[in-house]
Amino acid sequence: MPTKMRAAIFIEPGRIVLGEKPVPEPGPLDALIRITLTTICGTDVHILKGEYPVRSGLTIGHEPVGVIESLGSAVTGFAVGQRVIAGAITPSGTSNASLSGCHSQCGGAHGHGWTALGGWRFGNTIDGAQADYLIVPDAMANLAAIPDGLTDEQVLMCPDIMSTGMGGAESANIRLGDSVAIFAQGPIGLCATAGARLMGASKIIAIDRLPDRLEMARRMGADHIVDSSKTDAVAEIMNLTAGRGVDVAIEALGQQETFENALRVLRPGGTLSSLGVYSTNLTIPFGAYHAGLGDHHIVSTLCPGGKERMRRLIEIVDSKRFDSSALVTHHFSLDDIETAYELFANQRDGVLKVAIKP
Amino acid sequence: MPTKMRAAIFIEPGRIVLGEKPVPEPGPLDALIRITLTTICGTDVHILKGEYPVRSGLTIGHEPVGVIESLGSAVTGFAVGQRVIAGAITPSGTSNASLSGCHSQCGGAHGHGWTALGGWRFGNTIDGAQADYLIVPDAMANLAAIPDGLTDEQVLMCPDIMSTGMGGAESANIRLGDSVAIFAQGPIGLCATAGARLMGASKIIAIDRLPDRLEMARRMGADHIVDSSKTDAVAEIMNLTAGRGVDVAIEALGQQETFENALRVLRPGGTLSSLGVYSTNLTIPFGAYHAGLGDHHIVSTLCPGGKERMRRLIEIVDSKRFDSSALVTHHFSLDDIETAYELFANQRDGVLKVAIKP
Amino acid sequence: MPTKMRAAIFIEPGRIVLGEKPVPEPGPLDALIRITLTTICGTDVHILKGEYPVRSGLTIGHEPVGVIESLGSAVTGFAVGQRVIAGAITPSGTSNASLSGCHSQCGGAHGHGWTALGGWRFGNTIDGAQADYLIVPDAMANLAAIPDGLTDEQVLMCPDIMSTGMGGAESANIRLGDSVAIFAQGPIGLCATAGARLMGASKIIAIDRLPDRLEMARRMGADHIVDSSKTDAVAEIMNLTAGRGVDVAIEALGQQETFENALRVLRPGGTLSSLGVYSTNLTIPFGAYHAGLGDHHIVSTLCPGGKERMRRLIEIVDSKRFDSSALVTHHFSLDDIETAYELFANQRDGVLKVAIKP
Amino acid sequence: MPTKMRAAIFIEPGRIVLGEKPVPEPGPLDALIRITLTTICGTDVHILKGEYPVRSGLTIGHEPVGVIESLGSAVTGFAVGQRVIAGAITPSGTSNASLSGCHSQCGGAHGHGWTALGGWRFGNTIDGAQADYLIVPDAMANLAAIPDGLTDEQVLMCPDIMSTGMGGAESANIRLGDSVAIFAQGPIGLCATAGARLMGASKIIAIDRLPDRLEMARRMGADHIVDSSKTDAVAEIMNLTAGRGVDVAIEALGQQETFENALRVLRPGGTLSSLGVYSTNLTIPFGAYHAGLGDHHIVSTLCPGGKERMRRLIEIVDSKRFDSSALVTHHFSLDDIETAYELFANQRDGVLKVAIKP
Repeated sequence: MPTKMRAAIFIEPGRIVLGEKPVPEPGPLDALIRITLTTICGTDVHILKGEYPVRSGLTIGHEPVGVIESLGSAVTGFAVGQRVIAGAITPSGTSNASLSGCHSQCGGAHGHGWTALGGWRFGNTIDGAQADYLIVPDAMANLAAIPDGLTDEQVLMCPDIMSTGMGGAESANIRLGDSVAIFAQGPIGLCATAGARLMGASKIIAIDRLPDRLEMARRMGADHIVDSSKTDAVAEIMNLTAGRGVDVAIEALGQQETFENALRVLRPGGTLSSLGVYSTNLTIPFGAYHAGLGDHHIVSTLCPGGKERMRRLIEIVDSKRFDSSALVTHHFSLDDIETAYELFANQRDGVLKVAIKP
Repeated sequence: MPTKMRAAIFIEPGRIVLGEKPVPEPGPLDALIRITLTTICGTDVHILKGEYPVRSGLTIGHEPVGVIESLGSAVTGFAVGQRVIAGAITPSGTSNASLSGCHSQCGGAHGHGWTALGGWRFGNTIDGAQADYLIVPDAMANLAAIPDGLTDEQVLMCPDIMSTGMGGAESANIRLGDSVAIFAQGPIGLCATAGARLMGASKIIAIDRLPDRLEMARRMGADHIVDSSKTDAVAEIMNLTAGRGVDVAIEALGQQETFENALRVLRPGGTLSSLGVYSTNLTIPFGAYHAGLGDHHIVSTLCPGGKERMRRLIEIVDSKRFDSSALVTHHFSLDDIETAYELFANQRDGVLKVAIKP
Repeated sequence: MPTKMRAAIFIEPGRIVLGEKPVPEPGPLDALIRITLTTICGTDVHILKGEYPVRSGLTIGHEPVGVIESLGSAVTGFAVGQRVIAGAITPSGTSNASLSGCHSQCGGAHGHGWTALGGWRFGNTIDGAQADYLIVPDAMANLAAIPDGLTDEQVLMCPDIMSTGMGGAESANIRLGDSVAIFAQGPIGLCATAGARLMGASKIIAIDRLPDRLEMARRMGADHIVDSSKTDAVAEIMNLTAGRGVDVAIEALGQQETFENALRVLRPGGTLSSLGVYSTNLTIPFGAYHAGLGDHHIVSTLCPGGKERMRRLIEIVDSKRFDSSALVTHHFSLDDIETAYELFANQRDGVLKVAIKP
Repeated sequence: MPTKMRAAIFIEPGRIVLGEKPVPEPGPLDALIRITLTTICGTDVHILKGEYPVRSGLTIGHEPVGVIESLGSAVTGFAVGQRVIAGAITPSGTSNASLSGCHSQCGGAHGHGWTALGGWRFGNTIDGAQADYLIVPDAMANLAAIPDGLTDEQVLMCPDIMSTGMGGAESANIRLGDSVAIFAQGPIGLCATAGARLMGASKIIAIDRLPDRLEMARRMGADHIVDSSKTDAVAEIMNLTAGRGVDVAIEALGQQETFENALRVLRPGGTLSSLGVYSTNLTIPFGAYHAGLGDHHIVSTLCPGGKERMRRLIEIVDSKRFDSSALVTHHFSLDDIETAYELFANQRDGVLKVAIKP
């Protein structure tokens, strides 16, 4: 086994470079996995641009597919050589937050409370997955085996965008026969669209400005598509629902406009499920909020993690209910990750997701 | 039976006057009740001030206690002479919204959808309760009998503030052992405090600027009181929860400051339950919202109505679990209702709620 | 308009005959509809056999598709000539049970409580749908319009088996990635299978003894089929779930054996959703129940009704998510309903559901 | 620190003796705590009588209060000398069951699934708390600090009977204004009664055959008591609810009669919450179950565990909402534990719970 490895390292705003680091040693509760496939997330681009601050020198990336290389001394139940994934969010399982089912806001293994975003560690507070090797903390809570019949690429979306997008549908408690509007059809929004379809919504309306993405939305299950660069999306959705509005509106961009429009198309008593990462204050318009008397629910969801979550998502993939292969538009080797960032950050060439192979 | 009656009539912003109207006739689904006690709500003051528009000539008031005077031809199950209340919100029971359990946003008896605030009819879209007589629409869905052992005054808070305040606690799904902060201790906030206590919260923190109201909050079940005119309420609440924040924060004023503070003291994954009637846009601060990644729930609640709701609230009063008598600080006859408005609108003399007797 | 009509009338155990009755007059809250299509339910066979007692002289049937012929004096929001369905269960909307969302156990329009099975009126406590005309009580709560694009046959399953079968999936709170076993693939079980698929279960196991029904189960969405006439179903299901058991087991027959097997294949903490109509006491086996310490949920569901429920089911049909046409295996005119009963009661000729046209 | 300790050891049915064992060493994820107070549970009596089998040589007891003596090498977040409790149920936090929130059915630290009763380890599958020292497995998930202001005795009921009894109320989703009947007022039933009160039930009916226990039920919050040795409990409860039945019935004995009566007094759509440990098959009476059409929920609850659960219960005690001191009727030293078993097993001298001090 080598002692050095390649890693995509954040240096400063504007610079993520492929550098070299020592292969880390797992602590007692950790696993070391050899990465066999990973990808780049929109959040990584926020980090690249300096919009989400992380420390200089950190390895980026939170979507790992790999093979167990070694296990910490206290880890049982897994074996070296197993093919596994871990979620973007790696809860300890043992914090008060985790024990309450609030895994994404995990207060740490021994935590006595909740920590905002505490479950998000890879490429945020500890080294991430865009490297040859990765330490998975609290391995017993986080490693999920990949069935033999599935390829790395088939499960590549489970750690983050599939978990997040479908999580947005689940947090909204979509019910049989609901009408649902999903604002923005990037990778997360597309998975939210697929999630709405899987949960039994009967009228799914996908909104975006890019024809390619709207076309993909249809493949993911949308009944209607709305090109907001050409139409007044709010008026069009009210029209498609005969003036009633939707039962659930999902925001998947992180902008005031989409958040606000999501509220405007919501029927009284409906649920706005927010998935976007916002970089400014948000405004709730007085009228759309019915002065606070509309019985609305506004929920937000950080990517659900932990091995049970991953197991469920893998089962969905394995059952052929959801096929994310169409979302992987480009392939790169780890050596070319800087090029991959350049393409992905600028959303060139119709890119949705890239696959990065060490 | 008389043909004329007294009624508190909205004329124009700034003017609600006691006038005379004909006693109305019930339609087939209605009941006519003779009002024996009613009260004034903060919302009525909004109407008085022109902040919430209603049509000139409308009788105001939505908190009726009375006796059935006559019943519509299609109404069964009730008898003339029964002592009853009806909720401030009178759902039809038969609209799609009502049949979904979303009674406050009722689309009307024959409605094929949802209507924002549609369940609120008394003193909003039809004549209200500050009068000698009142038409209760959809009587079979809305009349609730008063047990013999209870006085009119004991059930006077059921139609609105008890239903609303406790509804705010229920919408937040308060659980055994939760910590809860309630911002503002007017009548609604006090009932929310009582609701949090009834539902098993173990740390209840009441916030207001008036010592009398804070004292009353203790009587309603608060463990801690915070005078926000003297202290930084956010800092104090974080201190009282050892930095953890509260599981549930209830907003009961309808102001940006309290809404925002409610979010600031909320733990990740917690619920902000909004009861206030806002008159401006609201801002969700970026940081307190953790950029949309805090797994927060923001719910709003319009007063739950319907006879089953009233039955449950009356049972709570009957069981001595909640005593609202302390909230009634002043008594007036209907003839003096203009004086009552003057006192109540200006919150003079420590007024919480007034009882108005025709 | 005629004054006489044909009706399938229960005379005594063993005898349902096509007779003549006067066309009824709607009361103030009723609608009279002219039946254009209806069907026979397994429950009707229970009535025929005397296993479920109803009064002699009652018109049978609870699955109406028709056209509004006339409306009661207090009914608004509908028009003569509209094509409509009503659910098998016709809640008042205004009883305490209905106002609590417990529509099937409706205590009557003016009811002050709950009545077991109170929402089931057609062909049980009032004249039913196997006739030329039908009175729909509490019409405003129960009539749902059929969109122009849908045929009578496409919505024929909405009033009962689709509502019941999918209701069993919904009561179990099936979640994305769940494994679900459905015991018995009669019409209700097939709809439960379709419901599990619609709600996002990732492993659906259908159990029956008839190859035709198992084949149909695959069409409805089953991933695995188990012929319990040839295999030990419990062992097979444990095998298919790698010893883990299912998250949800649905009983759709009404027998001790299937109820018990449903419990035996359930993982700890799982949900048994019971749809069957039982005619004997049930036994919960000590071991399968883990002595009461397995955190199991056992829920039962009577067909959900009301116009909002019907609206949602119609939307599902309209969206092409669910196609019940394959379930209608035979067609009869109302004149031949006795023949239809004979075929259906004896489950001859692979019958699943029959369409009866007046 | 000593190397030997006293322990109450199960030898064979009928014999639990105080013996000597080596003080154990904690593994990497464990904590060793010195027991300062513990108690005997009804389940221990089942073990004593051979009704619940455990291996010979096992130390009994699952209700520990103590002080941390030493910590495993991988345990962080706790310190030697801290006063702590652990729940009767000690989930790993990291099994699939635990990560799903189903802690009591935990599949083990590395578990890939659910194990029935898997969270119950103390005095069942590993050595228990009736000893001088105790190994707490998965310590980071299970140790909860005792606030300085609380005595050992004040928190002694948290690990089991308070968690179980209140858990039965919580699993039933008791709502404001519910009527609740609790069958049997042993320690668990008394805590269920207190839980129903804490959650806002407005009519609480406690049933038992012993006057002392019924008297205690009043102290715990019952509004009505029913002595089932003198009255027909079902008839009396139907009478107390004006024929309506209760919204929630809690079974806290583990007998067919109480289970069946709980179902008989339940309104349609109500919830039967089962806490009893049954030793025979259970029968669901056909009529009381409305042939499977009553929309009933039957839920069972094994004592919820984990440090977050303990934290919440301790907060409830600390807030003075619940005082279990009245439940501790007798005190013994560990040396006299055989006498304590004798008294407790035979329910002599009005015993409810005993405190055992090493």
